Amino acid sequence: MNTTPRHMTLVAFLQAQNCSNYTASWRHPATASDFTTPEYYQRIARTLEAAKFDLAFFDDRLAMPDIFNDDFRETVRHGIRAVKMDLPTILMAMGLATRHLGLGATYSTTYYEPYHIARVFATLDLMTGGRAAWNVVTSLNDAEAANFGREQLPDHDLRYDRADEFMAIVHGHWDSWDDDAIVQDKASGLFADPDKVRRIDYKGRWLRSRGPLTVPRSAQGHPVIIQAGQSGRGRTFAARWAELVFFIHPNLALAQRHYRDFKQGVLAQGRDPDRVRIMPAIYAVIGETEAMAEDKRALIDDLAKPIDALTLLSEVLNFDFGSKGLDEAFTAEELAAASGLQGILDRVIQMSGLAHPTVRDFLHFSGRGTLRELPTFVGTPATVANQLEEWYTTEACDGFVLAATHMPGAYEDFARLVIPELQRRALFRHEYPGTTLRETLGFERPARGAWRAPDG
Amino acid sequence: MNTTPRHMTLVAFLQAQNCSNYTASWRHPATASDFTTPEYYQRIARTLEAAKFDLAFFDDRLAMPDIFNDDFRETVRHGIRAVKMDLPTILMAMGLATRHLGLGATYSTTYYEPYHIARVFATLDLMTGGRAAWNVVTSLNDAEAANFGREQLPDHDLRYDRADEFMAIVHGHWDSWDDDAIVQDKASGLFADPDKVRRIDYKGRWLRSRGPLTVPRSAQGHPVIIQAGQSGRGRTFAARWAELVFFIHPNLALAQRHYRDFKQGVLAQGRDPDRVRIMPAIYAVIGETEAMAEDKRALIDDLAKPIDALTLLSEVLNFDFGSKGLDEAFTAEELAAASGLQGILDRVIQMSGLAHPTVRDFLHFSGRGTLRELPTFVGTPATVANQLEEWYTTEACDGFVLAATHMPGAYEDFARLVIPELQRRALFRHEYPGTTLRETLGFERPARGAWRAPDG
Repeated sequence: MNTTPRHMTLVAFLQAQNCSNYTASWRHPATASDFTTPEYYQRIARTLEAAKFDLAFFDDRLAMPDIFNDDFRETVRHGIRAVKMDLPTILMAMGLATRHLGLGATYSTTYYEPYHIARVFATLDLMTGGRAAWNVVTSLNDAEAANFGREQLPDHDLRYDRADEFMAIVHGHWDSWDDDAIVQDKASGLFADPDKVRRIDYKGRWLRSRGPLTVPRSAQGHPVIIQAGQSGRGRTFAARWAELVFFIHPNLALAQRHYRDFKQGVLAQGRDPDRVRIMPAIYAVIGETEAMAEDKRALIDDLAKPIDALTLLSEVLNFDFGSKGLDEAFTAEELAAASGLQGILDRVIQMSGLAHPTVRDFLHFSGRGTLRELPTFVGTPATVANQLEEWYTTEACDGFVLAATHMPGAYEDFARLVIPELQRRALFRHEYPGTTLRETLGFERPARGAWRAPDG
Repeated sequence: MNTTPRHMTLVAFLQAQNCSNYTASWRHPATASDFTTPEYYQRIARTLEAAKFDLAFFDDRLAMPDIFNDDFRETVRHGIRAVKMDLPTILMAMGLATRHLGLGATYSTTYYEPYHIARVFATLDLMTGGRAAWNVVTSLNDAEAANFGREQLPDHDLRYDRADEFMAIVHGHWDSWDDDAIVQDKASGLFADPDKVRRIDYKGRWLRSRGPLTVPRSAQGHPVIIQAGQSGRGRTFAARWAELVFFIHPNLALAQRHYRDFKQGVLAQGRDPDRVRIMPAIYAVIGETEAMAEDKRALIDDLAKPIDALTLLSEVLNFDFGSKGLDEAFTAEELAAASGLQGILDRVIQMSGLAHPTVRDFLHFSGRGTLRELPTFVGTPATVANQLEEWYTTEACDGFVLAATHMPGAYEDFARLVIPELQRRALFRHEYPGTTLRETLGFERPARGAWRAPDG
């Protein structure tokens, strides 16, 4: 069945923290400061739903950034993602303020149990009428390990091998109940048909779980799976399991290449490439005139501090960037020890053309902590729409993950100015087609056991 | 400081499942069947808040009942707590429908990580303006162990020894941030004072965690701690950590004895007994006349099935009650192997006067799955209030945990009929005194580190 979207998939890239993905955003004069309240998140949710976004999506991290100089003090002082709240409660608050918007959260396969994740997301999916999505991560760094009583983060490829078992368990639990299992006949006392509920009895190399899960299937079958692995092993994992895939591409040419490669990877896993959406994260800065947009961009750009980048790079690469001079090249051992986001490492080496980049090269080519980290589309509604259209129509992506330069203004600007332009060009929907996230995405409701394909 | 309540503490004993604490409740003609929706929980929350309840509290279990005959089929067929959803999302939904009601959930120290629990409840506490409570359990049976890939439940006393470390970590994380740490000065770029944030660097025998937690302190300091351990080791744990303590007492005399013993236990831990509230779980069946109340009770009583009791007893004692004949006495080995809720075992042996009770004795004296499990106060508003008043004024308790015979009617009846009678007698509040749960309970806001007392 062809489920190719007839328009872009649009996702908001959110954080339950004191700043947006752009760390300096909290210093922006128009950024709201009530980020610990439901009102903050519900306001964003209403804006996104009014604009007909597919999904509001939150990343996560299980430690305060403290790898740079082995200290959290600069993180706290400068507000570099110092706060990070747990997500399901926040998604529930947003779900109660909306009726269509998809609600996605990140939970780690390395530090949570599969029975727990299956239950948390199945509950959220029921409670929101089938609008939940789970972003699968295997976690990044030793600061997270220390909070969970471990000496260090497990090896990269091992994390993904174990995550494969994790996914089988979670999907197995999500299929514990048939769609029509519950009868709830008070007169006869029959609550549900026992032939339509089952254990999973999974015994893997790393993980075991028995079931049945205590949560019935939701209106959309089970939550949508999101993944963002950019490394070789991470991409194989995403090609096997993901329905929405988020990437960070520095430019159009690399995005097109990744898009082509990734869709082939999905095919190699025996899956239909049209059932997996690939979306790069971007920033958009929109003004009524080009000059106004440029002024906005300059203001935002000026908010970033060098400490932001050094702190965030240390986090994602699980390496203390304070341990080296700015122009000191990384040794082979140091590069091998950088065990976090392999995609960032690959990007810096690829774009710099250097086998041994310096700290300065990392800052420059990763763009971490600055607007240069993501493609930043700046201009009038028409010129921003032009850029989105170019990426979308030249097979660089199936849509976009919109990160915010400030909160919630970045989404309000996009909703008011760019969405109508995309709708005029027939690149984006005018109305939601149904109520579940799968209906919004144009994905088929999965039959029980469908996730087992292709390898049974 | 004397924080003795001037009136009863009233708690609703809720379950995120297909029935109330009284399993047969789902078969009641007036029980609502939309238990997977936010509307179901929000309706209850509004009823409880209108009645000025202190707290809505949810129990939890991490497996479908399947120890009886090693099978879940009867559980599913008869609806014996077959569904059990994850709680924080449900509490958030209730929190958004209310402004004062406390919101308590159970999470297990045996199957979750302390960093995770600290973050989940700290987030809920922030998002509800300081109304969260955590009920600490160490889990019960091997069915839960199997879902989490373990062979069997760890030993009872070991679970509590480990839980002591768990509590130190969770409280440590809740004190990561001083109340006034956050500055959020955009102009200077100072987000928070690094001298007011700290790691905990906890290294215990079983557990470790570093911190700082990424969630600031809430309006009530940190969530309220609930515990319900009735065994010797469980009571010591509760006396050390709990602020609200739930008990199941079959009658007034035992309740009075437990109350006295427990308050002495709190004193032995160096804590102020007035800062710990003790409440038995009860049912109430109220009618405009005694006859109407009796008719209601009879209808409710008739809904129970023998399979309910056998299934639930197998769960709480972690022992297959299908493996013995009805009149077969338990051997010493079998009694020692019953590793779940020690309080139930103690009760049956104590009340029956038998060292080796039979299955029938367990059914009779535990009352599990029937109205006899809890004291059931039946009658007009005046006679029910008389019974509540008697327990409350004769040092049997500081209040009550009201379990529901059917949902949500049991709470609606109590709110409409009994609450006004208690208010007339000056046994219960007319208005909430503030907004946080601690204000409602009359508890002082804890200073950072206050939990360390008495042993530093």
